[in-house]
Amino acid sequence: MVKYVSKSSRARKRKLPLPILMYADTRTSADQLYLAKFGVPDAFISMKKGAKSIAVLNQLEFSRGLKESAFSTILALEEWIEKARTKFRRDDVGVAEIVATLAAAYRVNGFRVSSDFPAWLAFQLQGFGIKIDAMKTSIFPARETKTEEEMRFLRQSNRCSAAGIRAAEETLKKSTIKRDYLYLEGKRLTSEKLREAIEVACLTAGSIPMDTIAAGGDQACDPHCTGSGPLRANELIIVDVFPRVAKTGYFGDMTRTFLKGKPSDAQRALVTAVKGAHSQAIKKVRTGVDGKTIHTSVQKYFDDRNYLTTHDESGAQGFFHGTGHGLGLEVHEVPRVSIVNFRLKRNSVITIEPGLYYPGLGGCRLEDVVAVTDTGPKKLSSYHYNWIVE
Amino acid sequence: MVKYVSKSSRARKRKLPLPILMYADTRTSADQLYLAKFGVPDAFISMKKGAKSIAVLNQLEFSRGLKESAFSTILALEEWIEKARTKFRRDDVGVAEIVATLAAAYRVNGFRVSSDFPAWLAFQLQGFGIKIDAMKTSIFPARETKTEEEMRFLRQSNRCSAAGIRAAEETLKKSTIKRDYLYLEGKRLTSEKLREAIEVACLTAGSIPMDTIAAGGDQACDPHCTGSGPLRANELIIVDVFPRVAKTGYFGDMTRTFLKGKPSDAQRALVTAVKGAHSQAIKKVRTGVDGKTIHTSVQKYFDDRNYLTTHDESGAQGFFHGTGHGLGLEVHEVPRVSIVNFRLKRNSVITIEPGLYYPGLGGCRLEDVVAVTDTGPKKLSSYHYNWIVE
Repeated sequence: MVKYVSKSSRARKRKLPLPILMYADTRTSADQLYLAKFGVPDAFISMKKGAKSIAVLNQLEFSRGLKESAFSTILALEEWIEKARTKFRRDDVGVAEIVATLAAAYRVNGFRVSSDFPAWLAFQLQGFGIKIDAMKTSIFPARETKTEEEMRFLRQSNRCSAAGIRAAEETLKKSTIKRDYLYLEGKRLTSEKLREAIEVACLTAGSIPMDTIAAGGDQACDPHCTGSGPLRANELIIVDVFPRVAKTGYFGDMTRTFLKGKPSDAQRALVTAVKGAHSQAIKKVRTGVDGKTIHTSVQKYFDDRNYLTTHDESGAQGFFHGTGHGLGLEVHEVPRVSIVNFRLKRNSVITIEPGLYYPGLGGCRLEDVVAVTDTGPKKLSSYHYNWIVE
Repeated sequence: MVKYVSKSSRARKRKLPLPILMYADTRTSADQLYLAKFGVPDAFISMKKGAKSIAVLNQLEFSRGLKESAFSTILALEEWIEKARTKFRRDDVGVAEIVATLAAAYRVNGFRVSSDFPAWLAFQLQGFGIKIDAMKTSIFPARETKTEEEMRFLRQSNRCSAAGIRAAEETLKKSTIKRDYLYLEGKRLTSEKLREAIEVACLTAGSIPMDTIAAGGDQACDPHCTGSGPLRANELIIVDVFPRVAKTGYFGDMTRTFLKGKPSDAQRALVTAVKGAHSQAIKKVRTGVDGKTIHTSVQKYFDDRNYLTTHDESGAQGFFHGTGHGLGLEVHEVPRVSIVNFRLKRNSVITIEPGLYYPGLGGCRLEDVVAVTDTGPKKLSSYHYNWIVE
């Protein structure tokens, strides 16, 4: 059915979108880093109007910005403070006054602002009569699909994750078992020590590790518990490694589950179920598939094998997180592979990470990163699935 | 002179401030971490009304929140999604609808929101008739001064920085000089390799290193350039280490400048000037002193010794950054020790980090962390100042 479109709404549709405005640092704002392509630790003003991208940098960042950034124009903050003082006829000017001065100079009467744009600044700009269109999602929809360069960066970041996983496995291999506990160099092997080995490997590979998970036994049944204290023999140990490559800002993300010693039949069955769910889910990845379809298939896979998901006052057990998420300049970004509908686009990059968690038995999660193509999944991360460490 | 206060403004003053609302993760939002005292990687809703602090957590975080967080009440996100669906009579509800449902349940008609509160959410809440008072600074003014526990955390984080500095010095000690370049284990020593040694030491000490600076020669004249490529003998190398302790979230921050080989007279004079400025500035730290007074004293110290600060199109040279900044859950927080007036409060924790940068000669910066007391500075970080590495 053809939708009636009035003349005025047609005219509105033809209008160019408002220029983009951001005020953020590049460490916490993926959108700012996506535009800047260089690192700035403190918040700064940036604008994008058509093909022109503009940053306002203080003298501490100015010359590095000229050399390293992707901005087409770099303005000196100190100069624009002076211009704002002249315009507002007072000395005490802040970010909002500087933006208003820029807006006037560039003949802009409104901005689209990024999802991390602060409310206080939006309100101040509105006070100056500037229209603010605030985005709930990334201001750069192109981030949902990856360029060839980004694919290269993501392969590199996932090599860093794999380096961390390898360090974990080797540390477990080197450890010995004494009265149900793991020992390394005469001392009890702890989650902290295992995490240190993983993170040193990530660093050496060129990435900054963050919140690395190395959790055993019941601790691993809390999927975001990073793990603490002694690790035991014959228990499932989840290792989830998502470092950020310092140079590019892209994240890796990989999870393996290990066990040092001898698994029980129940542990074997749990790992087999997760491995099965993981590989059938990866096979479903393809351009145009709904992420929800993949997620639902994992739920069904587990349900069919009687791995049920339940909730009570103290929390949940079974499979109670999403199957996967987009990966890029953020560790969790679009698309989603979860209970919400989300059609996968060509060249999106996602994780597939089903898991099962039962206190008493333990937790198991397996995670790899794949690119979405028209013909199926293309793995960007690679590490073997042997989980029993002798 | 007594200021006249009308009855109505008295009444207004007596009104309690609006409850606090945040929507952030704890990695990027220091305010959220300050309230939560536990780590959550994805954004979540939190509220503070009087002594009551409330978090809305999904099933992935719920039980860990009960065990680890400082919230007095933890609500299940899934339950509140249902309540919001009932209230709004539709399935498609988001964060704003959930907050509106909470506001109604807790009889709140407006919120103070943190400086990182997103504009899109503020606008949506206003659309539901909820008043939003957006803060430009931290929503917890108490963060400006540190408790005894926080002082302990900051001593620990600064031990991590010192461990990084020590690793840098030891790496330079172990290196050898061949035709003006530094070599380690038969290979040219690069900024990247030196940074790796520093960051591994930070990790081993329990902290996550970020954007560590290990820059030599003219690279170091860009104070935020992290450094790349081969390091040379007889050049000043700036090492600035500001890792975050994984367990507490508090940052350390320390800078030393080293030189492997033999310094020139001009290099010696530069380092002497920075050392002099650094120690006279630290001596001035005391409750009630204006940060600007300290910063101005550093500028004067350099000017008096003919270390002039100049600016041109390609950037600045001399001393062109602030003398220091507050340190805590953010690496840059209040108070400031810079060109703006900022009275130092008892138990604030600040860095003092004067530096001089002259392309051709090189850069030098020295940085320590001190607590503000009524009787003077109390150093929270400690490492020697020997800079010539044999």
